[in-house]
Amino acid sequence: MVRILGLDPSRASTGWGVIDAENNRLKYVADGFIKTDPKAPLEERLSLIYRTLCEVIEAYHPTEASIEVIFLNDNPMSTIKLSEARGVVVLAPGMYQIPLFEYEPSKVKKALVGTGQALKTQVETMVKVLLAGVKPKNNDSSDALAIAITHAHFKTNPVK
Amino acid sequence: MVRILGLDPSRASTGWGVIDAENNRLKYVADGFIKTDPKAPLEERLSLIYRTLCEVIEAYHPTEASIEVIFLNDNPMSTIKLSEARGVVVLAPGMYQIPLFEYEPSKVKKALVGTGQALKTQVETMVKVLLAGVKPKNNDSSDALAIAITHAHFKTNPVK
Repeated sequence: MVRILGLDPSRASTGWGVIDAENNRLKYVADGFIKTDPKAPLEERLSLIYRTLCEVIEAYHPTEASIEVIFLNDNPMSTIKLSEARGVVVLAPGMYQIPLFEYEPSKVKKALVGTGQALKTQVETMVKVLLAGVKPKNNDSSDALAIAITHAHFKTNPVK
Repeated sequence: MVRILGLDPSRASTGWGVIDAENNRLKYVADGFIKTDPKAPLEERLSLIYRTLCEVIEAYHPTEASIEVIFLNDNPMSTIKLSEARGVVVLAPGMYQIPLFEYEPSKVKKALVGTGQALKTQVETMVKVLLAGVKPKNNDSSDALAIAITHAHFKTNPVK
């Protein structure tokens, strides 16, 4: 059995989700999101994200973590802000020596829906189906559960 | 008197420098750089940067921190890597409630050399002059000392 922490970074609202995976069986453990105050200084916003993720790790003791490979945004400032948040989000499992696995966004769609071209809403629907009716707290934590499910999928069904 | 921690983030080698500033008098305290193994996983590299900066803060107790505003690189992957490192570097003062001040690269040149169009080598020369002959450990820690000096400069000589 592995306990997987899925992570969906963003400066404004970082999603997280924890699942247990044993062979092809998945079990929902917890999910949530970390909203930060747009008016707060950058270092305070990043501290809140990092501190909260450390609390999540200490509460649920995940053994592996997963996150999407960063995508190139049309807006360079958005890419910079996302990457700064991603650094802090990646740091949390790093500080607890939890191995982190990175997946392309198309792999998440493939793992959840069966095709790399799936719509975002199809991914959200499949999160609920695959986790037996769980209602994620919001879209960010749903995305985090999706990336956790993706890691469970490719662990048991390795694909090139 | 303020003790300023200057920060120059990079995934491969993050520079740091500490100075004391009292009115227009500057005193070198310490500097260094954090090299990370290019073959190590991202989360380990970012952990080393963060852990080392926490050690620096606990050793020297800076009261303020400064860093350059991030610049847009021609290579988007370089920008992403730099921003991820910058997130972790910004986090360190944030977790110790040390206020962080951000400056444009042109302000650093202006503060050190007197013109926003100064060359990098002129900035490096002025770091040694302004800190009474100190020899920075390498270019990264020299850049970190420069951003610390910049903050000392604009604190005592506010300019729009």
